[in-house]
Amino acid sequence: MPETAPHTTALDITGWTCPAPLRDRPRVVMGHGGGGALSAELVQHLFAPAFGGEVLAQLGDSAAVTLGGVRLAFSTDSYVVRPLFFPGGGIGDLAVNGTVNDLAMSGARAAYLSCGFILEEGVEMSVVARVAEALGAAARAAGVEVATGDTKVVEAGHGDGVYINTAGIGLIPAGVDLRPQRVVPGDVVIVSGEIGLHGVAILSVRDGLEFGVDIESDCAALGGLVQAMLAVTPDLHVLRDPTRGGLAASLNEIAAASGTGVVIQEGRVPVPAAVGNACAILGLDPLYVANEGKLVAFVPREHADAVLDAMRAHPLGRHAAVIGEAVADHPGMVVARTGLGGTRVVDLPIGEQLPRIC
Amino acid sequence: MPETAPHTTALDITGWTCPAPLRDRPRVVMGHGGGGALSAELVQHLFAPAFGGEVLAQLGDSAAVTLGGVRLAFSTDSYVVRPLFFPGGGIGDLAVNGTVNDLAMSGARAAYLSCGFILEEGVEMSVVARVAEALGAAARAAGVEVATGDTKVVEAGHGDGVYINTAGIGLIPAGVDLRPQRVVPGDVVIVSGEIGLHGVAILSVRDGLEFGVDIESDCAALGGLVQAMLAVTPDLHVLRDPTRGGLAASLNEIAAASGTGVVIQEGRVPVPAAVGNACAILGLDPLYVANEGKLVAFVPREHADAVLDAMRAHPLGRHAAVIGEAVADHPGMVVARTGLGGTRVVDLPIGEQLPRIC
Repeated sequence: MPETAPHTTALDITGWTCPAPLRDRPRVVMGHGGGGALSAELVQHLFAPAFGGEVLAQLGDSAAVTLGGVRLAFSTDSYVVRPLFFPGGGIGDLAVNGTVNDLAMSGARAAYLSCGFILEEGVEMSVVARVAEALGAAARAAGVEVATGDTKVVEAGHGDGVYINTAGIGLIPAGVDLRPQRVVPGDVVIVSGEIGLHGVAILSVRDGLEFGVDIESDCAALGGLVQAMLAVTPDLHVLRDPTRGGLAASLNEIAAASGTGVVIQEGRVPVPAAVGNACAILGLDPLYVANEGKLVAFVPREHADAVLDAMRAHPLGRHAAVIGEAVADHPGMVVARTGLGGTRVVDLPIGEQLPRIC
Repeated sequence: MPETAPHTTALDITGWTCPAPLRDRPRVVMGHGGGGALSAELVQHLFAPAFGGEVLAQLGDSAAVTLGGVRLAFSTDSYVVRPLFFPGGGIGDLAVNGTVNDLAMSGARAAYLSCGFILEEGVEMSVVARVAEALGAAARAAGVEVATGDTKVVEAGHGDGVYINTAGIGLIPAGVDLRPQRVVPGDVVIVSGEIGLHGVAILSVRDGLEFGVDIESDCAALGGLVQAMLAVTPDLHVLRDPTRGGLAASLNEIAAASGTGVVIQEGRVPVPAAVGNACAILGLDPLYVANEGKLVAFVPREHADAVLDAMRAHPLGRHAAVIGEAVADHPGMVVARTGLGGTRVVDLPIGEQLPRIC
């Protein structure tokens, strides 16, 4: 065989100049996957310019695309949660509900999912089976079909049991146009229920950190709740599910993309006592803790009462509450009015309080 | 906080009975990701029953689904190739072309991709950037838009630099119905070019195994070639891209699903000398080595000449060749006529010759 040097034909990775916002970190850190400012930098300064395209630049939970004259929502998430099973769920149902919820935030009812497994050599087949069964059960419960899949196996020490990617597609109903650019001052901010349950449930079973707490993850599919809200009016402005980075990250993303300010009344945000206690002990702020079965909605003021009533009539919205409003002041910034009458800025988190919660 | 035991609410993974075909291997082995018999067992006996659904049961390279009255192809693959860059490509372009090709095997032109990165803590940002740039360039070349994405980060020692999942959607043209069940005895088997290039290119740069070989991966997007073939007639019967498990795996999948036999003339299969030499030295059979820019087509006999001409007129089909036919004999089995007039059975591979080639 000829003695060529095959590496010379590989991509040349010398001479690349790191974009300024990423320059302080020449290597990937955990926070780049945290859904906060580091994640946003990576997407805005590295992935989006490299990929190009107008749809990605929308940077929503899911993309709205048109294909064959039909408006579709299209979304993906990889799931690397540890441990694989936790109070209230596991990676299998999380992989369904997370992607179903991203589609629901476009107003779409999820129709089909793809499912890619990256398995680590040596993981017990019974673990894979229980993950798959939970995934299938969650898909049936959400009314979505797993249409296509893929399995890869990596050597022991190059994975962590089971990683899952799901992508999903669903139809966006006519007249529904959910995006932060539609938010205007005066919009009412509604959260669908108690926050912080998923993150604290995961944390309670983390290696080396186990603590007893009487709560479970809120992991659930929100498609039905969103349909109930849209039945009141298709004219909701924007929906987000506050996963990584919690409610604080979602509100900041909406404020930044809409160019409005957001004010929340801290005392109106539903925080279960167990979450509040756990956060106090661990030094966490519940606003930054992940949820997997909640949404935050920006609703035109004239529809707010009716939408809230519809949410409270749905099992997944029983504890829905108005927590604030969009304002013309401090565009792009989120502030919280505290119980004592003070005000604090609710920043986009830098990295993440809890790695690998989804 | 109450002293409950949170683990009791997690999924119970005791008492699970392994389906018989999987029973010999209570843990996942590398071969479960190899695209051969072990992969098929995992899908048929574990994933498919757990997920349910009729579409997944088609088990093609991509699923054909109907949404809003429109026929779509939907497919996903995760990419865990090592090394990340290899002669002729890298994980970024592979992640585009692999999924574009899966869609093309349904006759669909890929329209939108999702892209999920699982990054390992500590990987150089420049590596991520070059992967992303190659991914973006490949998407533009293939005429597909990256519409939505996700990034997760796992701790060092739980990944391998960069893993990527892509899912894709595209329109299936009217009148096109590509699936193995349409194969009938007499169909002509055409391969689009020289086989084995991708697998040997990867192997040539594997840690501890480097050898000089004057070939590059054939990694390429086949959408244009497929459109050229469909322009001759929409009545092609089935297309597959022979990736993991090589041409042997694709032919076996088609034979099994169609219930016909397949006969190939071994001497007509285009094997480049460099691939043949490398395989001889390493004890590999080129029929089992992965490709990333080739397809195999089962074409009605009356259209075979015209389809072959159209393929040869396309840059990615210049070396297209008729290699065999579907037969009524030995249903479900693939046999090769050797140069000496003998016959050998071409089995579905059990696991894989080369782990992590895509």
